[in-house]
Amino acid sequence: MVDAAIIGAGPAGLSAAIDLTLLEKRFLWFGSPSEKVARSEKIANYPGLGLLSGAELSRRFAEHAAQLGIEPANKLVTNIMAMDGKYMLLAENEVYEARTVLLATGAVAAKGLPGEQEYLGRGVSYCATCDGYFYRGKRIAVICASPRYEHEAAYLAGLAGETFFWPAYKDCTLSAEGMTRLDSPITAVTGGLKVSAVTLADGRSLPVDGVFCLRSAVAPAVLLPALAMDGPHITVDRQCRTNLPGCFAAGDCTGRPYQIAKAVGEGNVAAHAMVEYLAQNE
Amino acid sequence: MVDAAIIGAGPAGLSAAIDLTLLEKRFLWFGSPSEKVARSEKIANYPGLGLLSGAELSRRFAEHAAQLGIEPANKLVTNIMAMDGKYMLLAENEVYEARTVLLATGAVAAKGLPGEQEYLGRGVSYCATCDGYFYRGKRIAVICASPRYEHEAAYLAGLAGETFFWPAYKDCTLSAEGMTRLDSPITAVTGGLKVSAVTLADGRSLPVDGVFCLRSAVAPAVLLPALAMDGPHITVDRQCRTNLPGCFAAGDCTGRPYQIAKAVGEGNVAAHAMVEYLAQNE
Repeated sequence: MVDAAIIGAGPAGLSAAIDLTLLEKRFLWFGSPSEKVARSEKIANYPGLGLLSGAELSRRFAEHAAQLGIEPANKLVTNIMAMDGKYMLLAENEVYEARTVLLATGAVAAKGLPGEQEYLGRGVSYCATCDGYFYRGKRIAVICASPRYEHEAAYLAGLAGETFFWPAYKDCTLSAEGMTRLDSPITAVTGGLKVSAVTLADGRSLPVDGVFCLRSAVAPAVLLPALAMDGPHITVDRQCRTNLPGCFAAGDCTGRPYQIAKAVGEGNVAAHAMVEYLAQNE
Repeated sequence: MVDAAIIGAGPAGLSAAIDLTLLEKRFLWFGSPSEKVARSEKIANYPGLGLLSGAELSRRFAEHAAQLGIEPANKLVTNIMAMDGKYMLLAENEVYEARTVLLATGAVAAKGLPGEQEYLGRGVSYCATCDGYFYRGKRIAVICASPRYEHEAAYLAGLAGETFFWPAYKDCTLSAEGMTRLDSPITAVTGGLKVSAVTLADGRSLPVDGVFCLRSAVAPAVLLPALAMDGPHITVDRQCRTNLPGCFAAGDCTGRPYQIAKAVGEGNVAAHAMVEYLAQNE
Protein backbone atom coordinates (compact mmCIF):
# COMPACT_ATOMS: atom_id res chain seq x y z
CA MET A 1 0.00 0.00 0.00
CA VAL A 2 1.27 3.44 -0.93
CA ASP A 3 0.91 6.67 1.04
CA ALA A 4 -1.11 8.48 -1.59
CA ALA A 5 -2.84 8.22 -4.94
CA ILE A 6 -3.09 11.32 -7.10
CA ILE A 7 -5.90 11.31 -9.66
CA GLY A 8 -5.03 13.84 -12.33
CA ALA A 9 -1.83 15.09 -13.94
CA GLY A 10 -2.71 18.69 -14.70
CA PRO A 11 -1.09 21.58 -12.78
CA ALA A 12 -2.66 20.63 -9.42
CA GLY A 13 -1.75 16.96 -9.67
CA LEU A 14 1.76 17.80 -10.85
CA SER A 15 2.32 20.28 -8.03
CA ALA A 16 1.24 17.70 -5.44
CA ALA A 17 3.35 14.99 -7.11
CA ILE A 18 6.43 17.23 -6.96
CA ASP A 19 5.88 17.91 -3.26
CA LEU A 20 5.15 14.30 -2.34
CA THR A 21 8.35 13.28 -4.15
CA LEU A 22 10.43 15.87 -2.28
CA LEU A 23 8.72 14.88 0.98
CA GLU A 24 9.70 11.27 0.24
CA LYS A 25 6.23 9.78 0.18
CA ARG A 26 5.32 6.73 -1.87
CA PHE A 27 2.50 7.52 -4.24
CA LEU A 28 0.67 6.45 -7.37
CA TRP A 29 -0.04 9.07 -9.99
CA PHE A 30 -2.82 8.56 -12.52
CA GLY A 31 -3.78 10.71 -15.46
CA SER A 32 -2.31 12.55 -18.38
CA PRO A 33 -1.05 16.12 -18.70
CA SER A 34 -3.73 18.79 -19.05
CA GLU A 35 -4.98 19.34 -22.57
CA LYS A 36 -6.50 22.61 -21.41
CA VAL A 37 -3.02 23.91 -20.59
CA ALA A 38 -1.41 22.44 -23.72
CA ARG A 39 -4.00 24.03 -25.99
CA SER A 40 -3.91 27.51 -24.42
CA GLU A 41 -2.63 29.89 -27.02
CA LYS A 42 -1.01 32.26 -24.54
CA ILE A 43 -0.55 32.22 -20.77
CA ALA A 44 0.49 35.51 -19.20
CA ASN A 45 -0.22 35.08 -15.51
CA TYR A 46 1.86 32.18 -14.29
CA PRO A 47 4.33 34.17 -12.19
CA GLY A 48 7.95 33.82 -13.19
CA LEU A 49 7.38 32.65 -16.74
CA GLY A 50 6.19 35.84 -18.42
CA LEU A 51 4.22 35.37 -21.60
CA LEU A 52 4.38 31.88 -23.05
CA SER A 53 2.30 29.37 -24.97
CA GLY A 54 0.39 26.58 -23.28
CA ALA A 55 2.48 24.09 -25.24
CA GLU A 56 5.66 25.63 -23.82
CA LEU A 57 4.32 25.58 -20.26
CA SER A 58 3.28 21.93 -20.72
CA ARG A 59 6.79 21.14 -21.89
CA ARG A 60 8.23 22.83 -18.80
CA PHE A 61 5.85 20.97 -16.52
CA ALA A 62 6.85 17.64 -18.11
CA GLU A 63 10.52 18.57 -17.83
CA HIS A 64 10.15 19.34 -14.12
CA ALA A 65 8.51 15.96 -13.51
CA ALA A 66 11.21 14.22 -15.56
CA GLN A 67 13.93 15.98 -13.52
CA LEU A 68 12.44 14.35 -10.42
CA GLY A 69 12.03 11.01 -12.17
CA ILE A 70 8.26 10.96 -11.91
CA GLU A 71 5.64 10.43 -14.61
CA PRO A 72 1.90 9.90 -14.42
CA ALA A 73 0.48 6.51 -15.41
CA ASN A 74 -1.92 7.12 -18.26
CA LYS A 75 -4.71 5.07 -16.67
CA LEU A 76 -8.25 6.13 -15.96
CA VAL A 77 -9.39 5.60 -12.38
CA THR A 78 -13.05 4.60 -12.60
CA ASN A 79 -13.95 3.85 -9.02
CA ILE A 80 -12.70 4.64 -5.52
CA MET A 81 -13.86 2.99 -2.34
CA ALA A 82 -13.10 4.07 1.22
CA MET A 83 -12.38 1.01 3.33
CA ASP A 84 -10.90 0.64 6.83
CA GLY A 85 -9.02 3.92 6.79
CA LYS A 86 -7.60 3.40 3.33
CA TYR A 87 -8.78 3.73 -0.24
CA MET A 88 -9.16 1.08 -2.95
CA LEU A 89 -8.88 2.40 -6.49
CA LEU A 90 -9.96 0.68 -9.66
CA ALA A 91 -8.06 1.64 -12.82
CA GLU A 92 -8.49 -0.37 -15.99
CA ASN A 93 -9.46 -3.53 -14.12
CA GLU A 94 -6.59 -3.35 -11.66
CA VAL A 95 -7.03 -2.59 -7.97
CA TYR A 96 -4.66 -0.29 -6.08
CA GLU A 97 -4.51 0.66 -2.40
CA ALA A 98 -3.53 4.01 -0.93
CA ARG A 99 -3.78 5.59 2.49
CA THR A 100 -4.84 8.95 1.05
CA VAL A 101 -6.32 10.17 -2.23
CA LEU A 102 -5.97 13.49 -4.00
CA LEU A 103 -8.65 14.32 -6.57
CA ALA A 104 -7.17 16.70 -9.12
CA THR A 105 -9.45 15.80 -11.98
CA GLY A 106 -9.97 19.24 -13.48
CA ALA A 107 -13.30 20.89 -14.14
CA VAL A 108 -15.23 17.82 -15.19
CA ALA A 109 -19.00 17.73 -14.90
CA ALA A 110 -19.70 16.85 -11.29
CA LYS A 111 -22.10 14.03 -11.90
CA GLY A 112 -21.67 13.13 -15.54
CA LEU A 113 -24.75 12.63 -17.68
CA PRO A 114 -28.14 11.86 -16.18
CA GLY A 115 -28.17 8.07 -15.87
CA GLU A 116 -24.38 7.75 -16.19
CA GLN A 117 -23.76 6.99 -12.54
CA GLU A 118 -26.88 4.82 -12.27
CA TYR A 119 -25.87 2.55 -15.16
CA LEU A 120 -22.16 2.38 -14.44
CA GLY A 121 -21.22 -1.29 -14.82
CA ARG A 122 -24.65 -2.01 -16.28
CA GLY A 123 -23.97 -0.71 -19.77
CA VAL A 124 -21.99 2.43 -19.03
CA SER A 125 -18.22 2.07 -19.30
CA TYR A 126 -15.22 4.40 -19.19
CA CYS A 127 -12.72 1.97 -20.62
CA ALA A 128 -12.67 0.73 -24.20
CA THR A 129 -9.95 -1.85 -23.69
CA CYS A 130 -11.55 -3.20 -20.49
CA ASP A 131 -15.11 -3.60 -21.66
CA GLY A 132 -15.15 -3.28 -25.45
CA TYR A 133 -15.05 -7.03 -25.92
CA PHE A 134 -18.45 -7.43 -24.26
CA TYR A 135 -20.08 -5.37 -26.98
CA ARG A 136 -18.94 -7.40 -29.99
CA GLY A 137 -21.55 -7.07 -32.69
CA LYS A 138 -23.81 -4.99 -30.45
CA ARG A 139 -25.09 -1.45 -30.72
CA ILE A 140 -23.22 1.19 -28.68
CA ALA A 141 -22.93 4.92 -28.19
CA VAL A 142 -19.51 6.52 -27.73
CA ILE A 143 -19.01 9.96 -26.18
CA CYS A 144 -15.50 11.14 -26.90
CA ALA A 145 -14.17 14.16 -24.96
CA SER A 146 -10.97 14.73 -26.88
CA PRO A 147 -9.03 13.68 -30.01
CA ARG A 148 -6.79 11.86 -27.55
CA TYR A 149 -9.39 9.09 -27.26
CA GLU A 150 -10.21 8.72 -30.96
CA HIS A 151 -8.17 5.55 -31.26
CA GLU A 152 -10.32 4.02 -28.53
CA ALA A 153 -13.46 5.10 -30.35
CA ALA A 154 -12.15 3.56 -33.55
CA TYR A 155 -11.32 0.34 -31.70
CA LEU A 156 -14.85 0.18 -30.31
CA ALA A 157 -16.39 0.85 -33.71
CA GLY A 158 -14.38 -2.07 -35.06
CA LEU A 159 -15.82 -4.42 -32.42
CA ALA A 160 -19.40 -3.23 -32.24
CA GLY A 161 -22.09 -3.91 -34.79
CA GLU A 162 -23.24 -0.30 -34.87
CA THR A 163 -21.69 2.75 -33.19
CA PHE A 164 -23.28 6.13 -32.56
CA PHE A 165 -20.41 8.55 -32.11
CA TRP A 166 -20.53 11.95 -30.40
CA PRO A 167 -17.25 13.89 -30.37
CA ALA A 168 -17.57 16.65 -27.74
CA TYR A 169 -15.03 18.91 -29.49
CA LYS A 170 -14.61 20.74 -32.77
CA ASP A 171 -13.12 19.54 -36.03
CA CYS A 172 -13.29 15.82 -35.44
CA THR A 173 -12.39 13.94 -38.60
CA LEU A 174 -12.67 10.38 -37.32
CA SER A 175 -14.76 8.01 -39.38
CA ALA A 176 -15.01 4.23 -39.37
CA GLU A 177 -17.17 1.52 -40.87
CA GLY A 178 -20.36 1.02 -38.91
CA MET A 179 -19.91 4.37 -37.13
CA THR A 180 -22.58 7.04 -37.35
CA ARG A 181 -21.50 10.51 -36.35
CA LEU A 182 -24.26 12.20 -34.32
CA ASP A 183 -25.05 15.84 -35.01
CA SER A 184 -26.74 16.35 -31.64
CA PRO A 185 -25.09 15.73 -28.25
CA ILE A 186 -25.99 12.78 -26.06
CA THR A 187 -27.74 14.21 -23.00
CA ALA A 188 -28.85 11.18 -21.00
CA VAL A 189 -28.52 7.43 -20.59
CA THR A 190 -31.75 5.51 -20.06
CA GLY A 191 -32.83 1.94 -19.56
CA GLY A 192 -34.40 -0.59 -17.23
CA LEU A 193 -32.09 -2.88 -15.28
CA LYS A 194 -29.48 -2.24 -17.96
CA VAL A 195 -28.85 0.51 -20.47
CA SER A 196 -31.31 0.40 -23.36
CA ALA A 197 -30.97 3.82 -25.03
CA VAL A 198 -29.35 7.25 -25.14
CA THR A 199 -31.30 10.47 -25.40
CA LEU A 200 -30.05 13.23 -27.71
CA ALA A 201 -30.37 16.99 -27.27
CA ASP A 202 -32.70 17.09 -30.27
CA GLY A 203 -35.12 14.83 -28.40
CA ARG A 204 -34.43 11.59 -30.27
CA SER A 205 -33.82 8.36 -28.41
CA LEU A 206 -31.43 5.81 -29.92
CA PRO A 207 -31.59 2.19 -28.72
CA VAL A 208 -28.15 0.95 -27.58
CA ASP A 209 -26.73 -1.88 -25.48
CA GLY A 210 -23.83 0.12 -24.08
CA VAL A 211 -22.45 3.62 -23.66
CA PHE A 212 -18.74 4.41 -23.57
CA CYS A 213 -17.68 7.73 -22.06
CA LEU A 214 -14.11 8.42 -23.15
CA ARG A 215 -12.85 11.24 -20.98
CA SER A 216 -9.72 12.32 -19.11
CA ALA A 217 -11.44 11.83 -15.77
CA VAL A 218 -14.52 10.35 -14.26
CA ALA A 219 -16.87 12.79 -12.51
CA PRO A 220 -16.02 13.09 -8.80
CA ALA A 221 -19.49 12.12 -7.60
CA VAL A 222 -19.32 9.00 -9.78
CA LEU A 223 -15.87 8.08 -8.47
CA LEU A 224 -16.80 8.61 -4.83
CA PRO A 225 -20.55 9.00 -4.31
CA ALA A 226 -20.15 10.04 -0.63
CA LEU A 227 -18.13 13.12 -1.59
CA ALA A 228 -19.69 16.45 -0.53
CA MET A 229 -20.17 18.71 -3.53
CA ASP A 230 -21.05 22.36 -3.94
CA GLY A 231 -22.81 22.34 -7.28
CA PRO A 232 -20.26 21.13 -9.83
CA HIS A 233 -17.33 21.50 -7.40
CA ILE A 234 -15.88 19.36 -4.64
CA THR A 235 -16.28 21.04 -1.26
CA VAL A 236 -12.91 21.57 0.41
CA ASP A 237 -11.59 23.61 3.30
CA ARG A 238 -8.50 25.85 3.28
CA GLN A 239 -6.30 22.73 3.61
CA CYS A 240 -7.95 21.15 0.55
CA ARG A 241 -9.61 18.50 2.74
CA THR A 242 -12.90 17.05 1.52
CA ASN A 243 -15.61 15.71 3.82
CA LEU A 244 -13.99 12.23 3.63
CA PRO A 245 -11.01 11.66 5.95
CA GLY A 246 -7.86 11.12 3.93
CA CYS A 247 -9.45 12.37 0.72
CA PHE A 248 -8.26 15.73 -0.61
CA ALA A 249 -9.01 17.76 -3.73
CA ALA A 250 -7.13 20.48 -5.62
CA GLY A 251 -7.35 22.52 -8.79
CA ASP A 252 -10.29 23.27 -11.06
CA CYS A 253 -12.40 20.52 -9.49
CA THR A 254 -12.62 22.56 -6.26
CA GLY A 255 -13.97 25.66 -7.97
CA ARG A 256 -13.12 28.93 -9.64
CA PRO A 257 -10.96 30.69 -10.63
CA TYR A 258 -9.97 28.03 -13.18
CA GLN A 259 -6.38 29.17 -13.23
CA ILE A 260 -3.02 27.44 -13.39
CA ALA A 261 -1.56 29.43 -10.47
CA LYS A 262 -4.52 28.56 -8.28
CA ALA A 263 -4.30 24.88 -9.21
CA VAL A 264 -0.56 24.73 -8.55
CA GLY A 265 -1.08 26.44 -5.18
CA GLU A 266 -3.79 24.02 -4.14
CA GLY A 267 -1.72 21.01 -5.20
CA ASN A 268 1.00 22.32 -2.90
CA VAL A 269 -1.40 22.90 0.00
CA ALA A 270 -3.04 19.49 -0.48
CA ALA A 271 0.30 17.64 -0.51
CA HIS A 272 1.28 19.26 2.78
CA ALA A 273 -2.12 18.48 4.30
CA MET A 274 -1.80 14.86 3.14
CA VAL A 275 1.60 14.51 4.75
CA GLU A 276 0.17 15.91 7.98
CA TYR A 277 -2.76 13.49 7.78
CA LEU A 278 -0.38 10.56 7.21
CA ALA A 279 1.69 11.56 10.24
CA GLN A 280 -1.41 11.78 12.43
CA ASN A 281 -2.78 8.45 11.24
CA GLU A 282 0.29 6.22 11.37
CA MET B 1 -9.01 56.60 -6.03
CA VAL B 2 -7.67 53.33 -7.37
CA ASP B 3 -9.41 49.96 -7.50
CA ALA B 4 -6.94 48.19 -5.27
CA ALA B 5 -3.87 48.53 -3.09
CA ILE B 6 -1.55 45.56 -2.77
CA ILE B 7 0.62 45.52 0.35
CA GLY B 8 3.55 43.24 -0.31
CA ALA B 9 5.66 42.34 -3.32
CA GLY B 10 6.56 38.75 -2.60
CA PRO B 11 5.08 35.86 -4.64
CA ALA B 12 1.48 36.47 -3.49
CA GLY B 13 1.57 40.23 -4.12
CA LEU B 14 3.27 39.71 -7.47
CA SER B 15 0.73 37.10 -8.57
CA ALA B 16 -2.16 39.44 -7.68
CA ALA B 17 -0.44 42.40 -9.36
CA ILE B 18 -0.03 40.39 -12.58
CA ASP B 19 -3.70 39.43 -12.57
CA LEU B 20 -4.97 42.91 -11.74
CA THR B 21 -2.85 44.27 -14.59
CA LEU B 22 -4.23 41.74 -17.07
CA LEU B 23 -7.75 42.38 -15.76
CA GLU B 24 -7.15 46.10 -16.38
CA LYS B 25 -7.66 47.33 -12.84
CA ARG B 26 -5.97 50.42 -11.48
CA PHE B 27 -3.94 49.59 -8.41
CA LEU B 28 -1.14 50.70 -6.12
CA TRP B 29 1.54 48.23 -5.24
CA PHE B 30 3.65 48.68 -2.11
CA GLY B 31 6.58 46.65 -0.92
CA SER B 32 9.79 45.12 -2.08
CA PRO B 33 10.53 41.68 -3.52
CA SER B 34 10.73 38.85 -1.01
CA GLU B 35 14.10 38.42 0.66
CA LYS B 36 12.98 34.98 1.78
CA VAL B 37 12.72 33.90 -1.86
CA ALA B 38 15.93 35.68 -2.92
CA ARG B 39 17.95 34.04 -0.17
CA SER B 40 16.65 30.51 -0.67
CA GLU B 41 19.55 28.38 -1.74
CA LYS B 42 17.49 25.99 -3.84
CA ILE B 43 13.84 25.83 -4.80
CA ALA B 44 12.68 22.53 -6.26
CA ASN B 45 8.90 22.68 -6.04
CA TYR B 46 7.76 25.63 -8.07
CA PRO B 47 6.15 23.70 -10.91
CA GLY B 48 7.58 24.39 -14.34
CA LEU B 49 10.93 25.73 -13.22
CA GLY B 50 12.67 22.58 -12.03
CA LEU B 51 15.53 23.10 -9.61
CA LEU B 52 16.72 26.69 -9.36
CA SER B 53 18.16 29.15 -6.88
CA GLY B 54 16.04 31.67 -5.04
CA ALA B 55 18.05 34.43 -6.68
CA GLU B 56 17.18 33.04 -10.11
CA LEU B 57 13.47 32.76 -9.26
CA SER B 58 13.53 36.34 -7.92
CA ARG B 59 15.07 37.46 -11.19
CA ARG B 60 12.34 35.70 -13.15
CA PHE B 61 9.63 37.23 -10.97
CA ALA B 62 11.08 40.71 -11.53
CA GLU B 63 11.35 40.06 -15.25
CA HIS B 64 7.70 39.02 -15.44
CA ALA B 65 6.62 42.22 -13.69
CA ALA B 66 8.87 44.28 -15.97
CA GLN B 67 7.34 42.61 -19.04
CA LEU B 68 3.97 43.91 -17.89
CA GLY B 69 5.40 47.31 -17.02
CA ILE B 70 4.66 47.06 -13.30
CA GLU B 71 6.94 47.57 -10.32
CA PRO B 72 6.23 47.82 -6.61
CA ALA B 73 6.76 51.14 -4.84
CA ASN B 74 9.32 50.52 -2.12
CA LYS B 75 7.26 52.26 0.55
CA LEU B 76 6.17 50.89 3.88
CA VAL B 77 2.44 51.12 4.58
CA THR B 78 2.12 51.83 8.28
CA ASN B 79 -1.59 52.30 8.75
CA ILE B 80 -4.83 51.39 6.99
CA MET B 81 -8.25 52.76 7.82
CA ALA B 82 -11.59 51.51 6.52
CA MET B 83 -13.81 54.49 5.75
CA ASP B 84 -17.11 54.75 3.83
CA GLY B 85 -16.60 51.63 1.73
CA LYS B 86 -13.03 52.47 0.84
CA TYR B 87 -9.61 52.27 2.45
CA MET B 88 -7.19 55.05 3.37
CA LEU B 89 -3.54 53.97 3.50
CA LEU B 90 -0.68 55.79 5.09
CA ALA B 91 2.77 55.17 3.58
CA GLU B 92 5.70 57.34 4.57
CA ASN B 93 3.50 60.29 5.50
CA GLU B 94 1.45 60.19 2.31
CA VAL B 95 -2.20 59.16 2.19
CA TYR B 96 -3.61 56.94 -0.57
CA GLU B 97 -7.15 55.77 -1.27
CA ALA B 98 -8.23 52.42 -2.66
CA ARG B 99 -11.52 50.60 -2.98
CA THR B 100 -9.99 47.27 -1.97
CA VAL B 101 -6.87 46.15 -0.13
CA LEU B 102 -4.82 42.99 -0.46
CA LEU B 103 -2.58 42.12 2.47
CA ALA B 104 0.32 40.03 1.19
CA THR B 105 2.78 40.93 3.88
CA GLY B 106 4.46 37.57 4.38
CA ALA B 107 4.81 35.74 7.66
CA VAL B 108 5.35 38.71 9.94
CA ALA B 109 4.55 38.45 13.62
CA ALA B 110 0.83 39.09 13.89
CA LYS B 111 0.90 41.71 16.55
CA GLY B 112 4.49 42.85 16.72
CA LEU B 113 6.14 43.22 20.11
CA PRO B 114 4.13 43.63 23.27
CA GLY B 115 3.56 47.39 23.52
CA GLU B 116 4.37 48.03 19.84
CA GLN B 117 0.79 48.60 18.76
CA GLU B 118 -0.06 50.51 21.96
CA TYR B 119 2.76 53.01 21.52
CA LEU B 120 2.54 53.43 17.75
CA GLY B 121 2.79 57.19 17.11
CA ARG B 122 3.73 57.72 20.75
CA GLY B 123 7.35 56.67 20.48
CA VAL B 124 7.11 53.65 18.20
CA SER B 125 7.86 54.32 14.53
CA TYR B 126 8.31 52.22 11.40
CA CYS B 127 9.89 54.90 9.28
CA ALA B 128 13.36 56.34 9.82
CA THR B 129 13.03 59.08 7.23
CA CYS B 130 9.56 60.12 8.46
CA ASP B 131 10.21 60.30 12.16
CA GLY B 132 13.97 60.21 12.70
CA TYR B 133 14.19 63.97 12.93
CA PHE B 134 12.07 64.04 16.10
CA TYR B 135 14.68 61.98 17.93
CA ARG B 136 17.68 64.27 17.35
CA GLY B 137 20.01 63.91 20.28
CA LYS B 138 17.64 61.55 22.08
CA ARG B 139 17.96 57.97 23.14
CA ILE B 140 16.39 55.36 20.85
CA ALA B 141 16.19 51.63 20.23
CA VAL B 142 16.32 50.27 16.68
CA ILE B 143 15.09 46.80 15.76
CA CYS B 144 16.36 45.91 12.31
CA ALA B 145 14.83 42.92 10.51
CA SER B 146 17.22 42.70 7.59
CA PRO B 147 20.48 44.08 6.17
CA ARG B 148 18.24 45.92 3.73
CA TYR B 149 17.41 48.44 6.47
CA GLU B 150 20.94 48.96 7.82
CA HIS B 151 21.30 52.29 6.04
CA GLU B 152 18.20 53.50 7.89
CA ALA B 153 19.63 52.28 11.19
CA ALA B 154 22.88 54.10 10.43
CA TYR B 155 20.94 57.23 9.55
CA LEU B 156 19.06 57.08 12.86
CA ALA B 157 22.27 56.51 14.83
CA GLY B 158 23.66 59.64 13.20
CA LEU B 159 20.70 61.69 14.41
CA ALA B 160 20.11 60.23 17.86
CA GLY B 161 22.24 60.86 20.91
CA GLU B 162 22.38 57.18 21.82
CA THR B 163 21.15 54.18 19.85
CA PHE B 164 20.56 50.66 21.11
CA PHE B 165 20.66 48.44 18.06
CA TRP B 166 19.19 44.94 17.71
CA PRO B 167 19.73 43.26 14.33
CA ALA B 168 17.29 40.34 14.09
CA TYR B 169 19.53 38.39 11.69
CA LYS B 170 22.95 36.79 11.62
CA ASP B 171 26.28 38.28 10.67
CA CYS B 172 25.42 41.93 11.00
CA THR B 173 28.55 44.06 10.70
CA LEU B 174 26.99 47.49 11.03
CA SER B 175 28.56 49.82 13.54
CA ALA B 176 28.27 53.56 14.03
CA GLU B 177 29.28 56.16 16.54
CA GLY B 178 26.87 56.33 19.43
CA MET B 179 25.40 52.92 18.53
CA THR B 180 25.44 50.07 21.02
CA ARG B 181 24.82 46.64 19.58
CA LEU B 182 22.58 44.65 21.93
CA ASP B 183 23.39 41.01 22.59
CA SER B 184 19.88 40.16 23.73
CA PRO B 185 16.71 40.73 21.68
CA ILE B 186 14.23 43.44 22.47
CA THR B 187 11.09 41.72 23.68
CA ALA B 188 8.73 44.55 24.69
CA VAL B 189 8.11 48.26 24.57
CA THR B 190 7.02 49.91 27.82
CA GLY B 191 6.14 53.37 29.05
CA GLY B 192 3.45 55.62 30.44
CA LEU B 193 1.68 57.97 28.05
CA LYS B 194 4.70 57.66 25.79
CA VAL B 195 7.46 55.11 25.33
CA SER B 196 9.98 55.20 28.15
CA ALA B 197 11.91 51.94 27.83
CA VAL B 198 12.49 48.66 26.03
CA THR B 199 12.71 45.31 27.76
CA LEU B 200 15.33 42.79 26.66
CA ALA B 201 15.11 39.00 26.68
CA ASP B 202 17.78 38.89 29.39
CA GLY B 203 15.45 40.87 31.69
CA ARG B 204 17.17 44.25 31.46
CA SER B 205 15.18 47.40 30.81
CA LEU B 206 16.82 50.21 28.84
CA PRO B 207 15.38 53.72 29.05
CA VAL B 208 14.62 55.14 25.57
CA ASP B 209 12.55 57.95 24.05
CA GLY B 210 11.69 56.12 20.88
CA VAL B 211 11.70 52.71 19.21
CA PHE B 212 12.17 52.18 15.47
CA CYS B 213 11.04 48.88 14.02
CA LEU B 214 12.66 48.52 10.60
CA ARG B 215 10.88 45.68 8.85
CA SER B 216 9.54 44.79 5.41
CA ALA B 217 5.98 44.94 6.65
CA VAL B 218 3.98 46.11 9.60
CA ALA B 219 2.12 43.40 11.52
CA PRO B 220 -1.42 42.94 10.14
CA ALA B 221 -3.14 43.56 13.47
CA VAL B 222 -1.18 46.82 13.82
CA LEU B 223 -2.10 47.92 10.29
CA LEU B 224 -5.77 47.09 10.68
CA PRO B 225 -6.75 46.39 14.28
CA ALA B 226 -10.25 45.15 13.32
CA LEU B 227 -8.81 42.29 11.26
CA ALA B 228 -9.82 38.81 12.43
CA MET B 229 -6.75 36.71 13.16
CA ASP B 230 -6.18 33.03 13.84
CA GLY B 231 -3.10 33.13 16.04
CA PRO B 232 -0.35 34.68 13.94
CA HIS B 233 -2.35 34.38 10.71
CA ILE B 234 -5.03 36.45 9.03
CA THR B 235 -8.31 34.53 8.87
CA VAL B 236 -9.49 34.16 5.27
CA ASP B 237 -12.02 32.04 3.45
CA ARG B 238 -11.44 30.04 0.26
CA GLN B 239 -11.71 33.28 -1.77
CA CYS B 240 -9.02 34.93 0.39
CA ARG B 241 -11.59 37.30 1.90
CA THR B 242 -10.90 38.57 5.42
CA ASN B 243 -13.64 39.58 7.88
CA LEU B 244 -13.50 43.17 6.54
CA PRO B 245 -15.46 43.81 3.32
CA GLY B 246 -13.07 44.72 0.51
CA CYS B 247 -10.02 43.54 2.43
CA PHE B 248 -8.31 40.38 1.20
CA ALA B 249 -5.17 38.50 2.23
CA ALA B 250 -2.86 36.06 0.45
CA GLY B 251 0.41 34.22 0.95
CA ASP B 252 2.33 33.39 4.11
CA CYS B 253 0.28 35.88 6.17
CA THR B 254 -2.79 33.62 5.81
CA GLY B 255 -1.04 30.54 7.19
CA ARG B 256 0.96 27.46 6.35
CA PRO B 257 2.35 25.93 4.23
CA TYR B 258 4.81 28.82 3.77
CA GLN B 259 5.41 27.96 0.15
CA ILE B 260 5.86 29.93 -3.05
CA ALA B 261 3.33 27.88 -5.02
CA LYS B 262 0.71 28.38 -2.32
CA ALA B 263 1.38 32.12 -2.17
CA VAL B 264 1.20 32.50 -5.95
CA GLY B 265 -2.05 30.54 -6.00
CA GLU B 266 -3.63 32.68 -3.30
CA GLY B 267 -2.54 35.91 -5.00
CA ASN B 268 -4.35 34.66 -8.09
CA VAL B 269 -7.50 33.70 -6.14
CA ALA B 270 -7.49 37.01 -4.23
CA ALA B 271 -7.16 39.09 -7.41
CA HIS B 272 -10.16 37.35 -8.93
CA ALA B 273 -12.17 37.78 -5.72
CA MET B 274 -11.23 41.49 -5.63
CA VAL B 275 -12.43 41.98 -9.19
CA GLU B 276 -15.69 40.27 -8.30
CA TYR B 277 -16.06 42.48 -5.22
CA LEU B 278 -15.39 45.61 -7.29
CA ALA B 279 -18.04 44.57 -9.82
CA GLN B 280 -20.59 43.98 -7.06
CA ASN B 281 -19.84 47.28 -5.32
CA GLU B 282 -19.71 49.71 -8.22
